Amino acid sequence: MSAIIKDIEIIKSKTTKINEVDFNDLKFGNTFSDHMLVCDFKDGKWQAPKVVPYQPITLDPSAKIFHYGQSVFEGMKAYKDVDENVFLFRPLENFKRLNISSKRLAIPELPESYFMEGLKTLLEVDKDWIPKNEGSSLYIRPFIFASGNGFHASPADEYKFIICTAPSGAYFSGKVKVLIEQTYSRSANGGVGFAKAGGNYAGQFYPTQLAVAKGYQQVIWTDDNTHEYIEEAGAMNIFVRINDTLITGPTSDRILDGITRKSIIEIAKAEGIPVEVRKITVSEVVEAAKNGSLKEMFGAGTAAVISPISGFGYNDTDYDLPELEDTFASFLKKTITDIQTNKSEDPYGWRVKLD
Amino acid sequence: MSAIIKDIEIIKSKTTKINEVDFNDLKFGNTFSDHMLVCDFKDGKWQAPKVVPYQPITLDPSAKIFHYGQSVFEGMKAYKDVDENVFLFRPLENFKRLNISSKRLAIPELPESYFMEGLKTLLEVDKDWIPKNEGSSLYIRPFIFASGNGFHASPADEYKFIICTAPSGAYFSGKVKVLIEQTYSRSANGGVGFAKAGGNYAGQFYPTQLAVAKGYQQVIWTDDNTHEYIEEAGAMNIFVRINDTLITGPTSDRILDGITRKSIIEIAKAEGIPVEVRKITVSEVVEAAKNGSLKEMFGAGTAAVISPISGFGYNDTDYDLPELEDTFASFLKKTITDIQTNKSEDPYGWRVKLD
Repeated sequence: MSAIIKDIEIIKSKTTKINEVDFNDLKFGNTFSDHMLVCDFKDGKWQAPKVVPYQPITLDPSAKIFHYGQSVFEGMKAYKDVDENVFLFRPLENFKRLNISSKRLAIPELPESYFMEGLKTLLEVDKDWIPKNEGSSLYIRPFIFASGNGFHASPADEYKFIICTAPSGAYFSGKVKVLIEQTYSRSANGGVGFAKAGGNYAGQFYPTQLAVAKGYQQVIWTDDNTHEYIEEAGAMNIFVRINDTLITGPTSDRILDGITRKSIIEIAKAEGIPVEVRKITVSEVVEAAKNGSLKEMFGAGTAAVISPISGFGYNDTDYDLPELEDTFASFLKKTITDIQTNKSEDPYGWRVKLD
Repeated sequence: MSAIIKDIEIIKSKTTKINEVDFNDLKFGNTFSDHMLVCDFKDGKWQAPKVVPYQPITLDPSAKIFHYGQSVFEGMKAYKDVDENVFLFRPLENFKRLNISSKRLAIPELPESYFMEGLKTLLEVDKDWIPKNEGSSLYIRPFIFASGNGFHASPADEYKFIICTAPSGAYFSGKVKVLIEQTYSRSANGGVGFAKAGGNYAGQFYPTQLAVAKGYQQVIWTDDNTHEYIEEAGAMNIFVRINDTLITGPTSDRILDGITRKSIIEIAKAEGIPVEVRKITVSEVVEAAKNGSLKEMFGAGTAAVISPISGFGYNDTDYDLPELEDTFASFLKKTITDIQTNKSEDPYGWRVKLD
């Protein structure tokens, strides 16, 4: 790590907030570590990244982020094992997806070393912020936004790439009840649904509020044309278990290529669970709920890891899922979390140890 | 106006930048007036708006605007006639649409008086910034964004409503050549396409760059499902003239309810131009271009007013539009601009004089 630290300028905070934090009572993403990585795109290129004290960002009111939503982000986690070793999970996948998102949003792509070395340097500086408690981790938020100015509706000429970190507890507590959406949509064919673009999330808030008012916690998004195909679960990918087969929709330009999603597919296959990656119709899920073959549904994503679903609403009818003893969800969650936190072997080579 | 000024706190700038500005050489939206209106949503309500010197905005790195694209905006113009009277054009329509956009983006709706009185006060303070030159105006940019903090993907608890103004020249110079899009899409059924949401614009930049690389200036968006229906022209609504009939698509949840669009429909009808508001297929436009009945196409929006199209590309073929002497575009542009700038009567009651 020392070579990397030498490469990236570090301006250390004179004080630390760490003693104000109760690591036994962490919420999700609202406590921030002492430092952040900042990297500016200007004069046509990405400038050298720096680690600086966590601090406010100052922008002109005409900065394009305020007007044209030009922003992308990633979600990652760092874990500490009992020996205080620090691990990341498939970080290169996040880097690659960030650039895929950036390209679609007309944001200049980032050099790999700026992302990877920047991230490792930041984690080395703030390693004391990585929680050791079961179920907690350091949530990592790399993001890029248009900081260039002007009201012309065109890509900015300046951007900021920032990584902030937040020691975090669980995203959801307990099972969630979901509403299969029949009116609103998350993404269009040929749109930006596959990208982690800021605007994809803002558009989900209002339909989710309507679902919450009806007693659900999350929306299951369906295709915008027929509302007959299940696509995503809020900010997660979705898996359905019918009998003993695990099914998830194929990625497309409407669906995020989730890293937890593809890891789960690989683990399930390796563990002998039959997996189908294919379009899922709402009608087959409703039918399976009625005839008892629908055993489980769960969301999968970095923030929530695996989020079991207790039931769903559709056409003004609620369908409860069975309470099983041994679920795919809990088995897969334990398997992936054990890999992430160095409690088990990592036959896939996904874990990256920082040293 | 004095009563309104008394109601809204004004903190005047100690200096002015106005002498640095060449009002005979204004670009679009990159020169900003001395003041701005700022209004914060916190503690569950919109606080009193204030006019303050144009100044940078400082936000926490976790502010939701950077992560979840929760932002909406409007575009308006103020005009000065030869006697230095100041006029707005249908400002209440912008206010109403801002709240329609906000609702869809889960942003708290704004009281009408905060918008209208705030705007009038700001324009009174910066009235010297309103250009008098032909073709120039004061572009007005009201916008709201999520300033509240946290990485949880949910609506913010704090927002900023700001109005900035920019003395501006033409948005486009000359006619534009457009590409009818067959791969990418602007919006989904049940999505946020009807809202002036930031994310709608960022998603257009990359496909527009691809079109520019092929020699076009703008993209004509089609429906995401079949690409068979013409929907919008970049940041504008689109009109097609076949023989002597003016046609524009109906508004929907995918298409912005443009104020210039609906004003043009009304003017055209009043002037005896046959107008059809109905779905327009790409195939009928191509067919009309081939048989010579396609006389004109133009975009319509606040920034560009009316932007004539010289030709379009579709299926790797370019179609040129005829060079007519008297066009609907130039007639309608003169008619609406004369109303806006107090050069003609305003039988519609659209012009609002500030006093």
